[in-house]
Amino acid sequence: MTEKEFFRASGRRPDEMRPVKLTAGYTSMPEGSVLIEVGHTRVLCAATVEQGVPGWMRNSGRGWVTAEYGMLPRATLTRTARESERGKVGGRTHEIQRLIGRSLRAVVDMQALGERTVILDCDVLQADGGTRTAAITGACTALAIACQRLVKAGTLKASPLRQLVAATSVGIVEGTTLLDLAYEEDSQAEVDMNLVMTEDGGLVEVQATAERQAFPRARMMEMMDYAEKGIRELLALQRAAMESAG
Amino acid sequence: MTEKEFFRASGRRPDEMRPVKLTAGYTSMPEGSVLIEVGHTRVLCAATVEQGVPGWMRNSGRGWVTAEYGMLPRATLTRTARESERGKVGGRTHEIQRLIGRSLRAVVDMQALGERTVILDCDVLQADGGTRTAAITGACTALAIACQRLVKAGTLKASPLRQLVAATSVGIVEGTTLLDLAYEEDSQAEVDMNLVMTEDGGLVEVQATAERQAFPRARMMEMMDYAEKGIRELLALQRAAMESAG
Amino acid sequence: MTEKEFFRASGRRPDEMRPVKLTAGYTSMPEGSVLIEVGHTRVLCAATVEQGVPGWMRNSGRGWVTAEYGMLPRATLTRTARESERGKVGGRTHEIQRLIGRSLRAVVDMQALGERTVILDCDVLQADGGTRTAAITGACTALAIACQRLVKAGTLKASPLRQLVAATSVGIVEGTTLLDLAYEEDSQAEVDMNLVMTEDGGLVEVQATAERQAFPRARMMEMMDYAEKGIRELLALQRAAMESAG
Amino acid sequence: MTEKEFFRASGRRPDEMRPVKLTAGYTSMPEGSVLIEVGHTRVLCAATVEQGVPGWMRNSGRGWVTAEYGMLPRATLTRTARESERGKVGGRTHEIQRLIGRSLRAVVDMQALGERTVILDCDVLQADGGTRTAAITGACTALAIACQRLVKAGTLKASPLRQLVAATSVGIVEGTTLLDLAYEEDSQAEVDMNLVMTEDGGLVEVQATAERQAFPRARMMEMMDYAEKGIRELLALQRAAMESAG
Amino acid sequence: MTEKEFFRASGRRPDEMRPVKLTAGYTSMPEGSVLIEVGHTRVLCAATVEQGVPGWMRNSGRGWVTAEYGMLPRATLTRTARESERGKVGGRTHEIQRLIGRSLRAVVDMQALGERTVILDCDVLQADGGTRTAAITGACTALAIACQRLVKAGTLKASPLRQLVAATSVGIVEGTTLLDLAYEEDSQAEVDMNLVMTEDGGLVEVQATAERQAFPRARMMEMMDYAEKGIRELLALQRAAMESAG
Amino acid sequence: MTEKEFFRASGRRPDEMRPVKLTAGYTSMPEGSVLIEVGHTRVLCAATVEQGVPGWMRNSGRGWVTAEYGMLPRATLTRTARESERGKVGGRTHEIQRLIGRSLRAVVDMQALGERTVILDCDVLQADGGTRTAAITGACTALAIACQRLVKAGTLKASPLRQLVAATSVGIVEGTTLLDLAYEEDSQAEVDMNLVMTEDGGLVEVQATAERQAFPRARMMEMMDYAEKGIRELLALQRAAMESAG
Repeated sequence: MTEKEFFRASGRRPDEMRPVKLTAGYTSMPEGSVLIEVGHTRVLCAATVEQGVPGWMRNSGRGWVTAEYGMLPRATLTRTARESERGKVGGRTHEIQRLIGRSLRAVVDMQALGERTVILDCDVLQADGGTRTAAITGACTALAIACQRLVKAGTLKASPLRQLVAATSVGIVEGTTLLDLAYEEDSQAEVDMNLVMTEDGGLVEVQATAERQAFPRARMMEMMDYAEKGIRELLALQRAAMESAG
Repeated sequence: MTEKEFFRASGRRPDEMRPVKLTAGYTSMPEGSVLIEVGHTRVLCAATVEQGVPGWMRNSGRGWVTAEYGMLPRATLTRTARESERGKVGGRTHEIQRLIGRSLRAVVDMQALGERTVILDCDVLQADGGTRTAAITGACTALAIACQRLVKAGTLKASPLRQLVAATSVGIVEGTTLLDLAYEEDSQAEVDMNLVMTEDGGLVEVQATAERQAFPRARMMEMMDYAEKGIRELLALQRAAMESAG
Repeated sequence: MTEKEFFRASGRRPDEMRPVKLTAGYTSMPEGSVLIEVGHTRVLCAATVEQGVPGWMRNSGRGWVTAEYGMLPRATLTRTARESERGKVGGRTHEIQRLIGRSLRAVVDMQALGERTVILDCDVLQADGGTRTAAITGACTALAIACQRLVKAGTLKASPLRQLVAATSVGIVEGTTLLDLAYEEDSQAEVDMNLVMTEDGGLVEVQATAERQAFPRARMMEMMDYAEKGIRELLALQRAAMESAG
Repeated sequence: MTEKEFFRASGRRPDEMRPVKLTAGYTSMPEGSVLIEVGHTRVLCAATVEQGVPGWMRNSGRGWVTAEYGMLPRATLTRTARESERGKVGGRTHEIQRLIGRSLRAVVDMQALGERTVILDCDVLQADGGTRTAAITGACTALAIACQRLVKAGTLKASPLRQLVAATSVGIVEGTTLLDLAYEEDSQAEVDMNLVMTEDGGLVEVQATAERQAFPRARMMEMMDYAEKGIRELLALQRAAMESAG
Repeated sequence: MTEKEFFRASGRRPDEMRPVKLTAGYTSMPEGSVLIEVGHTRVLCAATVEQGVPGWMRNSGRGWVTAEYGMLPRATLTRTARESERGKVGGRTHEIQRLIGRSLRAVVDMQALGERTVILDCDVLQADGGTRTAAITGACTALAIACQRLVKAGTLKASPLRQLVAATSVGIVEGTTLLDLAYEEDSQAEVDMNLVMTEDGGLVEVQATAERQAFPRARMMEMMDYAEKGIRELLALQRAAMESAG
Repeated sequence: MTEKEFFRASGRRPDEMRPVKLTAGYTSMPEGSVLIEVGHTRVLCAATVEQGVPGWMRNSGRGWVTAEYGMLPRATLTRTARESERGKVGGRTHEIQRLIGRSLRAVVDMQALGERTVILDCDVLQADGGTRTAAITGACTALAIACQRLVKAGTLKASPLRQLVAATSVGIVEGTTLLDLAYEEDSQAEVDMNLVMTEDGGLVEVQATAERQAFPRARMMEMMDYAEKGIRELLALQRAAMESAG
């Protein structure tokens, strides 16, 4: 779409994801645990399944899924102060954990989950762009593994996870549409889009933001094409990780 | 797109906005003040222009635009506790004020603004759905009026506002795509989208969320069409309000 | 009492109130809603009636009345930071909302109210002096309207409001006693008094403060005379607003 | 004023103060330290003199006086949670420390104090009613002693304290006006008044509150008479304490 | 152990405690109240006995003992900001109150206490070093007195306090081991140790910290000898205070 | 010391450490990064070196070393709420981070460090007992690696780290002294001791706590012997990790 294409420092093609690795069972305490690595970005995702639901849902027979997101102070190039020390959760964190929660709730059958709450903790060990989309992809895998176990243990008859979701980012940098932005690229992007998609190609969340200038709808379509390509690859890796977790 | 269309309690057609009214100069203290009414939703928007910018921007010669959003406790049908009493700003508030801020920054020439900070306070007096999009539309108008004044006063040579932005919501309720959801409709929506667009048709923010189930891309296109129609109407009202503010 | 009388910028006589307007039903969500305007000061008052009382009153068969006070950031000439952003309610706010609450509790028959809590939210849209006394006058009217409705709806047999209260301020500026201080006058006052009075002339709250130097008791008597005059006018307006609310 | 007088458990006459004791130099760290005992009520008052003033007063050549008030958890019959544990200062504390601060500022010549801040810490060791008025009386004495020292040390040419202030409470219990309410009396009072007065009889603060029902102006006059009588006694004790502190 | 011994400003021998005084019943509200003075250090200790235990202990038939520690702002030479004003309890305070709580729990028979919670409030009125060890010694005495009363009142059959604990500090200053450090000595100490010991000589807490350089084990033994000597003296004073409290 | 020795679930001898592994450079952002694994306990330690020191040390020419400690919510068998969500850092966290900070400051030459601040972030990824001692051992290694780099980069002439410190825990379980307690053992321990020691055998911190009953001094000596044995092994592993980090 642009005459002169932006050259990616990593040598990646515009529509190429960074190397992705999903390690199931990275820690052993949670019901479901996954370390997701997307390039240098590393997010540890843990699924906790608790009995009961928040007060406003009690006696509905339905479950609840929520997420929390955090970043280690030195996940970033310069140190970021802890939110616990500052005494409050920041706006960016709130925004991200609400996004993760909504993304997962869209694919869970709350009736099938029953009055249980699943909390997805997504903690960024190293941040190089795309932490929120990596968190969604990883959290969904951790949730899938936790459900798998509950079924195996006979607690649930069938997994309440109707299908998997995965997410990635796409951006426009110097006029070039690029899939899966690394931090360096993200900081220069004119437009930034996060897309969350299910296995059957349904859209769960589309968030496109003009960082500096508005963009035409045609560009949005192209970005969505790129994102879908990347998400297809992620969904395959999620399936593989679920199998490895047995 | 659906066989049997959802009937709106208000008698509106699916692609019809609620009545919209913009009152410039509703209060007299701020540099720019607008009360926006969209149906029963009422948001008071105030633009404050202060000398100086946040520390990380100092000596850049560039300005900054930010927003804060609040809701009076009894803007809603049942009373909502004050965030000041709870001692912290909630996630929803954080998410909304970040959205408003980003939307406006995308159309402001920060170089032309110079080292000034514009704070847009958006306070909901009455809430009947669509408060965040009404806030964007109203805040942009308040900002435009404040800029107009700074130009008239000779403080600025030309308005740093490159063009206006306005926003509305679109949703899918019982399979029918509906423009500008009222609270009652919003609470039943399967999909909810907020779209922020400029006068030249550029997209600034697109946020589409599947509340219950994923949606196909074609549906997204239809929702964008509806939103563009509504936003065209809002932009005309903004221009009129600016003129009335003289 | 002084040889040369202080000239009020508004041209008002020393014992003259600013124009006062009470708009019943300004918003439609609360059980009782009143916008009170005293000169440029505007306070939106909302009465919320909830079932139940605080823990320490449970099973007493008695009700409770409390108030919260807030100010929009740009109600003032220069912007004031939100208390929600600062993470705590300030001392001035605490002092004011305690004053409003006490003033109203003095005229409510808690036995007749039954185990219900009435919360009066007083939010200042524009501040030009006298916001706390305007809040008391407006809140009492909102409470009266809410009680009227509960009686009409058959929920209560008779209104638990024994009589109305209203409040105003009086001050001494350059030796002259002045009724109903506007902000500009208030900032120069040597003495500042707030008085809350009932329809039968009983005192509910008297708060007189020497801002710069102590004052003799005779001066206090004069200030009380002025205040009573103003409050009589306010009480008549409250009755009219109640009737208009039907 | 009432036919049958209320009998005070202490055997005091209606216009009789509890035994009062002021111990100067109770602790040795502060510039001025006083333990005030009014009956069983005990408040430790400490005056700290620091160089500099709050930002908004800088380079005005004028000083500032402020107060903080606290209560040990077990100053009361049943334990009260610490405000530090609850993470915020309560409304009652805010109200009291603002009252103490205003009372003292009314008698200090800020020009003579120069760019210094005096902080009066008033900590209640035991509470049996009247802690806020005891705090004012004690804090003024601690301030006077601190000023005395600054003059003796040659830091100040003359004491910036123009005259002393003292405070007491008066209430109406079962129709009888009573001076200096103990906790038991206070909890039954229909009306409660705090009065702050200077040595030359000037009023600094008058706060009268109808706890249950409004009261006539004549009653207010009687309460003011009682309070003045008590304050005269307190002022004499303050002078004696100042002398003992040398 | 060193050639040239450090000379203590107070003229004390290296293994000599400061004068210690325990005043039982210093305030009259708490179930047990003790003012402990160790040199210029003064800590007011209050034991509150409440029905019930924290949620996680309910229905265990066992009691709980906890402590809170505070310091008046002007207990110190220069004023320290209130933790209530700063909105949070600091790390030092947390560390100290945890230490006090653990020390007392080690000597209480929780079964004999039954489902009651004892809160020990330790508030420093004046600080000259050793406030945490004085707090432990004083709190244990207040607890002992409260238990004595519960037994006398017939609420408890026997005191749940198995034996007394007391605590003191030892340090190394300029190479000399010193018992019971005053503030001036503490601020120069190379090593600082707090030791909590029971009447039968058992150790409850040993906390030794190298402030500037590591120390050999032999030195630790010598410090423990000194501490035991001091604690023996404290235990005798505690017994005397208990008897005086009757 | 006991007739019948406690059998460790892991099959370890009483004086045997769990397998320990130190991975230098586990993350790449910090100046020094180490993942320490002690049995199932895993702590990620990051050293951040910043220019400047806290205000009270400015212009002293000396540096500062501090630590922060956190735990991922699902590091534990049941989920622990985030301190950022609760809005404050808990007492246990405060206690631990103060211990880590003191332990490291005892071995750093602050003059040689110059006006720089080193922050050691210790985040527990998985917790199975001994997280605070693992954090000290890991943090010291991360600090050593960061210093090594500053020397190599020529920023510092020599490492300000005078010698290494390492730490372990020892406890008494059913009368048996055990080195390096796992969570299961720790929860049953009668006595718990943490010991921090330098390479030349100097003690930096000794913290011994009787969880249930006081213990004799002889037992303390035995525990110190065990701890020294374990620490010797840790110090060797630290040296190896430093070499691997080059």
